[in-house]
Amino acid sequence: MNATEDITMAIMPRELTQNPLRKIWMPCKNGLPEKHISQKRVCMTNCPTLIVTVGLPARGKTYISKKLTRYLNWIGVPTKEFNVGQYRRECLKIYKNFEFFRPDNEEGLKIRKQCALTALNDVRQYLSVEGGQVAVFDATNTTRERRSMILRFSEQNGYKVFFVESVCEDPEVIAQNIVQVKLGSPDYIDCNTEEAIQDFMKRIKCYESSYQPLDEILDRELSYIKVMDVGRQYLVNRVLDHIQSRIVYYLMNIHITPRSIYLCRHGESELNIRGRIGGDSGLSTRGKEFALCLGKFIQEQNIKDLKVWTSQMKRTIQTAEALGVQYEQWKALNEIDAVSVCWPVLCWKGRKTFWSSATRLSCAVSLPTFWTKVQMSCLI
Amino acid sequence: MNATEDITMAIMPRELTQNPLRKIWMPCKNGLPEKHISQKRVCMTNCPTLIVTVGLPARGKTYISKKLTRYLNWIGVPTKEFNVGQYRRECLKIYKNFEFFRPDNEEGLKIRKQCALTALNDVRQYLSVEGGQVAVFDATNTTRERRSMILRFSEQNGYKVFFVESVCEDPEVIAQNIVQVKLGSPDYIDCNTEEAIQDFMKRIKCYESSYQPLDEILDRELSYIKVMDVGRQYLVNRVLDHIQSRIVYYLMNIHITPRSIYLCRHGESELNIRGRIGGDSGLSTRGKEFALCLGKFIQEQNIKDLKVWTSQMKRTIQTAEALGVQYEQWKALNEIDAVSVCWPVLCWKGRKTFWSSATRLSCAVSLPTFWTKVQMSCLI
Repeated sequence: MNATEDITMAIMPRELTQNPLRKIWMPCKNGLPEKHISQKRVCMTNCPTLIVTVGLPARGKTYISKKLTRYLNWIGVPTKEFNVGQYRRECLKIYKNFEFFRPDNEEGLKIRKQCALTALNDVRQYLSVEGGQVAVFDATNTTRERRSMILRFSEQNGYKVFFVESVCEDPEVIAQNIVQVKLGSPDYIDCNTEEAIQDFMKRIKCYESSYQPLDEILDRELSYIKVMDVGRQYLVNRVLDHIQSRIVYYLMNIHITPRSIYLCRHGESELNIRGRIGGDSGLSTRGKEFALCLGKFIQEQNIKDLKVWTSQMKRTIQTAEALGVQYEQWKALNEIDAVSVCWPVLCWKGRKTFWSSATRLSCAVSLPTFWTKVQMSCLI
Repeated sequence: MNATEDITMAIMPRELTQNPLRKIWMPCKNGLPEKHISQKRVCMTNCPTLIVTVGLPARGKTYISKKLTRYLNWIGVPTKEFNVGQYRRECLKIYKNFEFFRPDNEEGLKIRKQCALTALNDVRQYLSVEGGQVAVFDATNTTRERRSMILRFSEQNGYKVFFVESVCEDPEVIAQNIVQVKLGSPDYIDCNTEEAIQDFMKRIKCYESSYQPLDEILDRELSYIKVMDVGRQYLVNRVLDHIQSRIVYYLMNIHITPRSIYLCRHGESELNIRGRIGGDSGLSTRGKEFALCLGKFIQEQNIKDLKVWTSQMKRTIQTAEALGVQYEQWKALNEIDAVSVCWPVLCWKGRKTFWSSATRLSCAVSLPTFWTKVQMSCLI
């Protein structure tokens, strides 16, 4: 913008008109309000963000999109996901087989492109009209041409684009994903497991030939995160703002493999016998017997990479000792009020009842913690 | 560990003894407490962390170390930095010139290695005796051999290692760093700017020949973050736990280049004339004049990549309009209580007094926001 323009604008500021609903003053020309800021080609702090997934099928793109959407909404950022596969299923009621995804299937290509465009239209509706802040465009987007189209669309609408690419070559992880997720897909509702797996593997093949991953040189100007081998490594490029930085932090800390946490109480203590609560006594004879049972139980589970946490009370440490593995003591796990001791008195009455009182939680917590699969046992 | 061992350990749990000071129960053998968990070769959740910087001189390693140390302490993680350069200066009172750092200067190498070892000893003292949780080992550590030595040291002491490598090839950034930081170094207290710059450039050269950056293949098992070109790109590998994940998040969001924030009030409003506070009136004639002055002032500053934020009040938007640049409206910037209006009545009394009321903050805030240099102007 040159000096004279500046002066003109400075000397003749635009008139303002108030949005009757939102009570916000907007500049107007000839009595009509000017376009919303996000419809101009400038990158403002509060421009909406379009998250675009990239990757071959069965790389956890949809899983990531769903989790990300839930997280962003949870931290107060209005977010919605747009799964192109869903659009395809809606427009094409019956799925025959992988042939549909073949690169030389012109009709298939046409339909898939159309679905992508319809999805993008809904994205525009959500971000520019309904006041959404983030849209997650969940599709393979494996070709540079498709990504350029999305970039043009975003530039025209004033959206920031952040790519999330999932790269994984571990056949075991891919197979696991197919079995756990894809077999439940509506596409394979009427065929047996083996057929489904075979068909899906062929579907992946259809994309492999044309797959162009995000490129360190060619895409150096784009904002993206590349997730390698289910979180072993991340490549983060040009994080532009707070939202993108939160997305990166979150993606670096989600667990996509389920983990188990075992919660267990200590064995009966000397003071428990005397009906006294609290204190810091050691285990009674039955408490020690309980510890042995627990040790055997844990060994039977044959848990890989077991982490054991205890409180700093003598009775819990003695119980942990019987496991015959390394354990850690946490002050935070010490009992807060002794009343809690009354709780599962059951668990001292012998093995059977004990097992009923040992709680097992399956979870994939989205908190910053190990990136690896962790099995954990707490004695509190 | 095989089954029989399990059983033995399960059948004969170790005795416990209580630490008289910390009142914590520890397993003991022959009446003596067993080694602290962190002195065993197992990676537990609460093992201390050793952060190791990697990179050529003038890549901001010390800056990062200092900021990181301050941040970790701030979030409640006892952290201390160990700057090997400092040890070198203490053991070698007078610094002559870059010759000391030449790869063929055997005495120099000996002294530098000795300094590194002394620093590591202090690290051990801090992490294993004084109860520190994180130590930042601030040195170039540019050779694989040196890093292996640190890894062995950490394994022996049960510390987790996290490498932070800063890679930057932009001569401008490096020159800037030398001028801003290195010239103030005690090494160059008695020589002129030009000499200092020349010597430091030669110092960098001494390291370049032997520099072995962290390698994607060879170092795939290590935990590290590679910061490329002052935050344009990050490579994050094997983040092991919460602390490392916090470190990564922080490093991805610090600004190493200073930025300026301009704070400014709106021009005088119609209601201000009538001595009324609050409301949502437009600018008075003098208010508009003020807006023009502000516009000229901002143009004179010739600020690159200027971002303008306003509240949603008519008077601030009208003032912003006069700048002739894009701006964003934030509800959060609306006045909370009208009393604030009484404040700088000064600023409507003409340019001179206005400038005195326009506050300018130079800052490099460590909050998730732009990674680029940002100039910002708020009208509140």
